[in-house]
Amino acid sequence: MHIVAFATGNPRKAEEVRSILRSYDIDVEVVKVRKIEIQDDSIERIAAFSARILARRIGKPLVVEDTGLFIDALKGFPGPYSAYVYRTIGLKGVLKLMEGVEDRHATFVCVVAYCEPGYRPIVFEGRVRGRIADEARGSFGWGYDPIFEPDGYNKTYAEMGVYKNEVSHRAEAFRKFANWYIESKRV
Amino acid sequence: MHIVAFATGNPRKAEEVRSILRSYDIDVEVVKVRKIEIQDDSIERIAAFSARILARRIGKPLVVEDTGLFIDALKGFPGPYSAYVYRTIGLKGVLKLMEGVEDRHATFVCVVAYCEPGYRPIVFEGRVRGRIADEARGSFGWGYDPIFEPDGYNKTYAEMGVYKNEVSHRAEAFRKFANWYIESKRV
Repeated sequence: MHIVAFATGNPRKAEEVRSILRSYDIDVEVVKVRKIEIQDDSIERIAAFSARILARRIGKPLVVEDTGLFIDALKGFPGPYSAYVYRTIGLKGVLKLMEGVEDRHATFVCVVAYCEPGYRPIVFEGRVRGRIADEARGSFGWGYDPIFEPDGYNKTYAEMGVYKNEVSHRAEAFRKFANWYIESKRV
Repeated sequence: MHIVAFATGNPRKAEEVRSILRSYDIDVEVVKVRKIEIQDDSIERIAAFSARILARRIGKPLVVEDTGLFIDALKGFPGPYSAYVYRTIGLKGVLKLMEGVEDRHATFVCVVAYCEPGYRPIVFEGRVRGRIADEARGSFGWGYDPIFEPDGYNKTYAEMGVYKNEVSHRAEAFRKFANWYIESKRV
């Protein structure tokens, strides 16, 4: 069993990542530190910057994750500021912005940044294309899960239950990380 | 004439600050550097962090400014991410979010952070209370100026012309800075 430090303040996110990594024989140890996140339109740069600083601070390798929902018709909004937008205008606000908007395409992006102290971060990305639902549906997960329908499904993430973890942007990013991590530990 | 380095990529902001500081016999030298801004709900911390890093990088004292429009009914949105929100959903999006909303109160906040290399930043704040207009009006200024009506006026910032610089949140913050700066240079 490998154990990897994971910086997050969201217990549901920690559980989700744990469930994704289980089949790779990797467990996560949650590190509760205040992340320093920069303002940037690229969540890849945000996660990489954060991982580099935190690895140095805690003095061991760790993983940081950043996620954004990028809505085509809103020029990528809420994107890198998805968490802040959720806390303020919420799903109701996002749905209001999408009222009467025909193009409902959106991309859910997750970036995992792994960093060892003093080294450059390595990043892994997962992307899922989908649509913004007309109203919130379902109760699984958190955040934007009730309004995001991945392409090829008539359900929102929140209606998919644990099956979300088979197809999600976060699953894709963490699987890429896990494959690389296990490979690199074999060397 | 005192000259102070001012980090901004917005020429209209530089002009506005120049006009505010003129009567204090202070001129600004625009420094074009990429600001590093953290994600934080407090623009005071964002500006202070940015000033500290940039002062060290350019090796001389400088001023950084951060501004946010905090709308009561939207829990402070767009707040620290006002620039990003303007670039994506724009005034149209903010007005859509405010459709049918009775409480239109908002606060425009400007923080000026002054920092000398290796020292702690000193911050000055200006706040103006007002309302979100029902539609964009006027052409002066930029950003949210056409939808912000300061209390006591029936005009938006964008309708007030240069008179905006007498009453604005930015004027208040830079005047506080200027008074302190001139005092401290006399010692």
